[in-house]
Amino acid sequence: MTTTIPKFKLASRVSQEEDTIITVKGQHIGGPHTTVIAGPCAIENEYQMLSTARAVKTSGATILRGGAYKPRTSPYSFQGLEEEGLELLKKAGELVDLPTVSEVISTETFDIVEKYVDILQIGARNMQNFPLLKRAGKSNKPILLKRGMSATIEELLMAAEYIMSEGNMQIILCERGIRTFETYTRNTLDLSAVLAIRELSHLPIIVDPSHATGRHEMIRPLAKAAIITGAHGLMVEVHYQPEIALCDGPQSLKPEAFELLMRDIEHLRDFNTQMLNIKSK
Amino acid sequence: MTTTIPKFKLASRVSQEEDTIITVKGQHIGGPHTTVIAGPCAIENEYQMLSTARAVKTSGATILRGGAYKPRTSPYSFQGLEEEGLELLKKAGELVDLPTVSEVISTETFDIVEKYVDILQIGARNMQNFPLLKRAGKSNKPILLKRGMSATIEELLMAAEYIMSEGNMQIILCERGIRTFETYTRNTLDLSAVLAIRELSHLPIIVDPSHATGRHEMIRPLAKAAIITGAHGLMVEVHYQPEIALCDGPQSLKPEAFELLMRDIEHLRDFNTQMLNIKSK
Amino acid sequence: MTTTIPKFKLASRVSQEEDTIITVKGQHIGGPHTTVIAGPCAIENEYQMLSTARAVKTSGATILRGGAYKPRTSPYSFQGLEEEGLELLKKAGELVDLPTVSEVISTETFDIVEKYVDILQIGARNMQNFPLLKRAGKSNKPILLKRGMSATIEELLMAAEYIMSEGNMQIILCERGIRTFETYTRNTLDLSAVLAIRELSHLPIIVDPSHATGRHEMIRPLAKAAIITGAHGLMVEVHYQPEIALCDGPQSLKPEAFELLMRDIEHLRDFNTQMLNIKSK
Amino acid sequence: MTTTIPKFKLASRVSQEEDTIITVKGQHIGGPHTTVIAGPCAIENEYQMLSTARAVKTSGATILRGGAYKPRTSPYSFQGLEEEGLELLKKAGELVDLPTVSEVISTETFDIVEKYVDILQIGARNMQNFPLLKRAGKSNKPILLKRGMSATIEELLMAAEYIMSEGNMQIILCERGIRTFETYTRNTLDLSAVLAIRELSHLPIIVDPSHATGRHEMIRPLAKAAIITGAHGLMVEVHYQPEIALCDGPQSLKPEAFELLMRDIEHLRDFNTQMLNIKSK
Repeated sequence: MTTTIPKFKLASRVSQEEDTIITVKGQHIGGPHTTVIAGPCAIENEYQMLSTARAVKTSGATILRGGAYKPRTSPYSFQGLEEEGLELLKKAGELVDLPTVSEVISTETFDIVEKYVDILQIGARNMQNFPLLKRAGKSNKPILLKRGMSATIEELLMAAEYIMSEGNMQIILCERGIRTFETYTRNTLDLSAVLAIRELSHLPIIVDPSHATGRHEMIRPLAKAAIITGAHGLMVEVHYQPEIALCDGPQSLKPEAFELLMRDIEHLRDFNTQMLNIKSK
Repeated sequence: MTTTIPKFKLASRVSQEEDTIITVKGQHIGGPHTTVIAGPCAIENEYQMLSTARAVKTSGATILRGGAYKPRTSPYSFQGLEEEGLELLKKAGELVDLPTVSEVISTETFDIVEKYVDILQIGARNMQNFPLLKRAGKSNKPILLKRGMSATIEELLMAAEYIMSEGNMQIILCERGIRTFETYTRNTLDLSAVLAIRELSHLPIIVDPSHATGRHEMIRPLAKAAIITGAHGLMVEVHYQPEIALCDGPQSLKPEAFELLMRDIEHLRDFNTQMLNIKSK
Repeated sequence: MTTTIPKFKLASRVSQEEDTIITVKGQHIGGPHTTVIAGPCAIENEYQMLSTARAVKTSGATILRGGAYKPRTSPYSFQGLEEEGLELLKKAGELVDLPTVSEVISTETFDIVEKYVDILQIGARNMQNFPLLKRAGKSNKPILLKRGMSATIEELLMAAEYIMSEGNMQIILCERGIRTFETYTRNTLDLSAVLAIRELSHLPIIVDPSHATGRHEMIRPLAKAAIITGAHGLMVEVHYQPEIALCDGPQSLKPEAFELLMRDIEHLRDFNTQMLNIKSK
Repeated sequence: MTTTIPKFKLASRVSQEEDTIITVKGQHIGGPHTTVIAGPCAIENEYQMLSTARAVKTSGATILRGGAYKPRTSPYSFQGLEEEGLELLKKAGELVDLPTVSEVISTETFDIVEKYVDILQIGARNMQNFPLLKRAGKSNKPILLKRGMSATIEELLMAAEYIMSEGNMQIILCERGIRTFETYTRNTLDLSAVLAIRELSHLPIIVDPSHATGRHEMIRPLAKAAIITGAHGLMVEVHYQPEIALCDGPQSLKPEAFELLMRDIEHLRDFNTQMLNIKSK
């Protein structure tokens, strides 16, 4: 089926046929690789960050996440530890030897986040914060760009184009659910977007089932679904004690649940490899 | 997580803990079984129906579908062969020894559809056609009930409740995509609905990736995603020559593509079994 | 601006330039006329029906409504008085000398509703109940066709085309809110649909602010907004005691509130006439 | 009807019963006043800005708008004249003696926009750009805050709360259409939001029919609808020659069409005053 989306160039499969593969501290993202980004929604303190880091590393996560600047709907909610949080994330990343990712929410604090982390995340609410995208385009670090909650697939790729048009080609896209009329889940996970993006673009596309559903019990099955659909990886919120989390507790996995998810993903990778072998015979 | 949906009773997991399993002509639907319903969107002629039936049977489909009464957006589109179509479907089902399903769009034509087919489908546009639901509740044949394109999960279960409250407990639910702002796909497939329904209800829930996406190239990956998420089966449109189909050509699979999809599903069933064995050790 | 919607013919402004005007028992609908349909959501008993009829007539309503066959989300909700209700509606209509409208929800009960009322309503849930539309097309009474809750403007006009293609050209369209992510209101009233339909079609288009919002306090201002936007009329739920209504109490107006609304509409009609006079000078 | 939105405080009607009225260079916004903000989507050159300014002033606009920093979906679209544009806007504002408003899209360029204009606009894409909201909270100039395209009413009020919690109480809210499945219009104008916000908050709420519909022919009727619904004003795109506009031509009014709109609004104000007099008798 021919596509009728001509407005992005650098992000388009037309301009680059082979998959983009991004390498950060020995971890490869895109192409045949399966990335698993895990960690707490918000960095709360040293014990929480380090113990979660150890747990997710042990289970097989490939990138460590943790929020230091938190975009919260209410000004009265916990806004993040800011630089102090970034220091804890960096320390945790070094301890468990994993690259780190954290969200950047303004051009003003871009430099400081850039200094501490290996990958910079631009969140759903900032997907069309164009000055932030342009600043990201001047960074030499990879950008994890999340789909806005009412952004079309085309708009997501146009947002990537903003970054690329400034020179930064290392972009990881992330489907995290879109806003619909259904209220049972926080958002509606759109797995067809994974397929559309793989068709239209060479950029890696991962899936965040935590924000997509807002329900911890749905994360594991939808993580498997994302991988089998063709996502290049996952982003999952893990907290050692979700009941006391300062942010997004209901959608965070305990380390034991994350371990089970990782076993599933591992088997699924073997399964996919077997399937490829069967097909190539 | 506790649910706050108290309005349905008979359809609720609270009223019946174990999964409902429906048996039609030796085929089991629900529980551990994986149902694959396949066939053309619309029955067009004997050659098309019989050749498609043979192809999907050979590939492993468990139920044969074919539309005789077609709900079409335009009055000037092909409206279906009606009773003549039902006769062809029945003949095809007997030929390949598969139970059949076809859509019923009114109480007036309910008897005739009921006479010819093994399972009666109520389509998305009729999910809240309450007289039709009540009539279905008086049938002794299973009902395949599709989610309306803007129906909440709760409303789908309430529609099932309508049927059940009249006495028919054999209901198969079907997620087929919901209407959102995204226009790249025809609808947006909501796989979290599969999880929600498995939690809230004992009824089997299958997935229709054909209508959900409107794009044939997305059907195979999303079919796998549906199965790994926990769907009890699939409904897929298959046409021996989609380019000349009178209905839904762009979202129909050719028999060869359906064969590949069935091989995937088979391996995935083995995979799930292996996973269960690993877990139970 | 040229339109790119070519699929409906009889409903299109292209096939008929001048506005359709429908006349029922001396009341004109469409063109320069402002229709106000009022009455209870559900007919409950003689006292309720007759007292509400008297009240809305006194305030200036031009058509009397009352539901006898109620499409309810739950099978356990009040389903309407059926034929007994239609008799009460007919009696009330004769008492206050107003034409009547009531919803028809199936082909099977079409004849009986057609016998008692002057205008037959097809509700939002049945906008794509095609056998019902075809039956309506064979009626010689006007049809009030409500927009489905996730129907596009084009789909609404295609539904009208179904009726018209069977021979009945007397159709009144009704915008009643569409389903969106916003939960503060029951639906989201789409007044731009009024403008789109006036451009694309010659059929009258009225607005139902009761179902659009689900909130009685919003009905009066949105009724005025609908009229000034160009709607050919309104449909409003009125109940002499909304607190005890068997259906849709929260969105029903008391007779006193309806009286105020009618005064507003009357002044607005004068205002529009003055505006036209000013413009024509 | 009691509201169940307890999360905002300063923006709430509970904390301040009377309407907030903002005064800028002699123009009052909120309460009984009707504000009309008009001007081009993007400032293109001196001739365009000054001629448009003169035209909208003559017709009765109370505030002059013009975009200098443009948030565009594509990086290859015209991005605005930036400071040069602000200078032209300031000059135009002085020439016609009207306060000015322009969009600010980052904290980094906040100071410069603040220096030139009287009111700073935060656009739909930045409604949850929290650092920008916090910076706006430290400004001593009024903020025009537009609803995000998939923001709930509650989220809009929470965004206002962000600004207010930093000390700036001068906020004008703006409904500009929400994203829905309907594609006939660019967005779907939600006039019930005007009513909800007037009930929940003391802040002024205006309506932007240009962005809501994306169709110039719908602006005038929906502008009237907004005023009669209770909006405190309008924001309208006006361009002396929409066919050659660098931005949003299809939704821009010519000066002559804007003049007609202003006459309507004027008569409507008289009408509302008459209505109040009638009611108070």
